[in-house]
Amino acid sequence: MQISVIGASEGSPEILRDAEAVGRVIAEAGAVLVCGGLTGVMEAASKGASEAGGTVVAVLPTLSPADANRYVTYAVATGIGEARNLAVVASGRAVIAIGGEWGTLSEIAYARKLGRPVVAIQGWTLRNPSGTDLGIVEAETPQQAVEAAMSEATAEPQP
Amino acid sequence: MQISVIGASEGSPEILRDAEAVGRVIAEAGAVLVCGGLTGVMEAASKGASEAGGTVVAVLPTLSPADANRYVTYAVATGIGEARNLAVVASGRAVIAIGGEWGTLSEIAYARKLGRPVVAIQGWTLRNPSGTDLGIVEAETPQQAVEAAMSEATAEPQP
Amino acid sequence: MQISVIGASEGSPEILRDAEAVGRVIAEAGAVLVCGGLTGVMEAASKGASEAGGTVVAVLPTLSPADANRYVTYAVATGIGEARNLAVVASGRAVIAIGGEWGTLSEIAYARKLGRPVVAIQGWTLRNPSGTDLGIVEAETPQQAVEAAMSEATAEPQP
Amino acid sequence: MQISVIGASEGSPEILRDAEAVGRVIAEAGAVLVCGGLTGVMEAASKGASEAGGTVVAVLPTLSPADANRYVTYAVATGIGEARNLAVVASGRAVIAIGGEWGTLSEIAYARKLGRPVVAIQGWTLRNPSGTDLGIVEAETPQQAVEAAMSEATAEPQP
Repeated sequence: MQISVIGASEGSPEILRDAEAVGRVIAEAGAVLVCGGLTGVMEAASKGASEAGGTVVAVLPTLSPADANRYVTYAVATGIGEARNLAVVASGRAVIAIGGEWGTLSEIAYARKLGRPVVAIQGWTLRNPSGTDLGIVEAETPQQAVEAAMSEATAEPQP
Repeated sequence: MQISVIGASEGSPEILRDAEAVGRVIAEAGAVLVCGGLTGVMEAASKGASEAGGTVVAVLPTLSPADANRYVTYAVATGIGEARNLAVVASGRAVIAIGGEWGTLSEIAYARKLGRPVVAIQGWTLRNPSGTDLGIVEAETPQQAVEAAMSEATAEPQP
Repeated sequence: MQISVIGASEGSPEILRDAEAVGRVIAEAGAVLVCGGLTGVMEAASKGASEAGGTVVAVLPTLSPADANRYVTYAVATGIGEARNLAVVASGRAVIAIGGEWGTLSEIAYARKLGRPVVAIQGWTLRNPSGTDLGIVEAETPQQAVEAAMSEATAEPQP
Repeated sequence: MQISVIGASEGSPEILRDAEAVGRVIAEAGAVLVCGGLTGVMEAASKGASEAGGTVVAVLPTLSPADANRYVTYAVATGIGEARNLAVVASGRAVIAIGGEWGTLSEIAYARKLGRPVVAIQGWTLRNPSGTDLGIVEAETPQQAVEAAMSEATAEPQP
C-alpha cells in the first residue's frame, strides 16, 4: 500500500521530527512512502522510512532524478513543477499532511477532490461556506496519523 | 490585464449570479478574463464578460478546444486534467475566487504560493497553524471583488 | 479558427523569415495563432501575425505571463515546462511545423497522435517501421503551408 | 540505475517478445525499469522485469494507481495524460524505444531534448534538415539494447 506524505520544503524542528516519525511508522507498517522528494518535511519523512528499511517513491517537480533527497529509493522526474502536487496525492491510497504551507494546502485540496482520505498533523483549519464536514481527520501523534491513514485507506475501494 | 476567475463547475443561483457579474465588471474595466473554460462558475463568468464585449481565455483540462463553454473567445486545451489549475491562476495578475469547492481551494493555494493576489466571494475560511495573515481579501459584491483584484494587481510587479 | 505554429527558440534567418510569413498569412486569413510564446520561430511567427493585425495566444512553459515575447496578445502561463508542448498542438485545429529540432518533433508526434493535421516546412523526415503514410503535408512556402493547414483543418470535425 | 522503456499500448507478437526480453535483461542487470505502466509494450516489459525479480516503476497518465498493469511494483498516477511522456523519459538515465508509434516518437524527441541516450529496436527512422547525427543507437536484439543503454548511461553524468 502506497501512503502519500505531504509538507513543505522547510519546517520547524517539531514538524520535521513528526515527519520523520511518520515515515518510520509507515515503513514499519509495511507500506510504501510517496512524497515530493525534496527537502524539509519530504526529506524528514523519507529519512524515517528509509532508516526503518522502507521504500520511498519521489515525485519530483524537476527533470532531474538527482534532485531527489538521499533517502529516496525511486525517483520520478516529472518536469511539471508544482503541477506535480496532483500526482503526489493521487499516487497514495491515503494522504498524511504535516504542517501548513500553501503547497500543502493545494495537495490537501486535490486529495479531497479525488476522494483520498486525508489525515492532518499541525495543519490547516478549513471551513467552506456550507459548513459541511470536510472529511479531514486530525491526528495528535505520528503513530495516530499513520494508523488513521491506513484504516481509512483500507475502508475505501482501491483508487 | 488578465484576471483569473476560479470556481466550481456547478453552483447555486446566487453563486452563478455573482460569477456572471464578476465577468461583466472585468470586461467593463477593460481586463481579460481567464478561467477554466467549463460549466458552472466558469461559464457564468464567461457569459458576463462575453456579453459585455470582453475577451475570455479558457484553460481547459482536456485535449479538445470544443469542450470550452460557448462564451469563450480563445481556448487552450492543456490535456493535463486538474493539474491545469496551476495554469489558470498563474495566467492572471490577480485571482477572484467564487464559492468553496475543493478544486477552487487548490487554485487559491496555488495562487498564494505564487504570490498572486486573491479576492474571495462566498468562499473558504482558512487558518494556518501560525495564524499569520493569509493575504486573501474578502469581498461582499462582484463590483468590490473586481476593484480589489485590479487594485492589488497593479500594486505588485508584473508576474 | 486557431492554428498552432511550432518551432525552436532559435533559427536560421531563412527559418525565421518563413516563420514570420506564416504568422502574417495566418492573420490575413482571419485565423488565430497559437504558439509556445517564447523566442526564435515562436517570436517570428508572433511578430508576423501581430503586425498584420492578428491575435497571438501563447502557451508558455513558465509561471510568468511576462515571459511571453512582445507580440503575444494573450498568455497562458502553464508552469509545466516542456510538457506544455502537448497543449500547444492540442489547441490548434491544424499545426504548422517550421524547422527540425527535438522539441518540434515532440510536438509533431503529439499532434499526429491526436489526429491534428500537420504541415511541415524545412522539417523532419520521418519513416516508421511499417512504412505507412504519416499524414504530414510538406509545404514549400509559407503561403502554401497556411493554405494546406486551413484546408486540412476544415476537412475534419472540430476537435 | 533506472532505465526507461517506451513503446505503444499495442504491439505485434515480435514487438511484445522483444519488450519482454528487454524487461528481463534490465532486471538481470540489476537496473530498475521505468515505463508508462499500461498495456502492450509497457506491460510486456513490466512482465519481463517482474518475472526476473526486478522492480517496475510506472508513470501513469491517469489518476488511478489501479490502472497500472499487474507487473508494476510502484505506480505514480500523474493525472496529466499524455503529457506524462516527458516524465517517463526524464526518469531514466537511458531510454530504450521499442516500435514506432506516435507516442513513442514524442518520448524519443523529449529524451533527446533532455540529452538522455536513446537506444531503438524496430523503430523510427529520423532525419532532420541539417542531417546531423541524432545520437540514437539502433540495436538488433534486446540484449544489445540493454547493454548499449547501460553503457551510454554510465558514460554520462547523472541527470
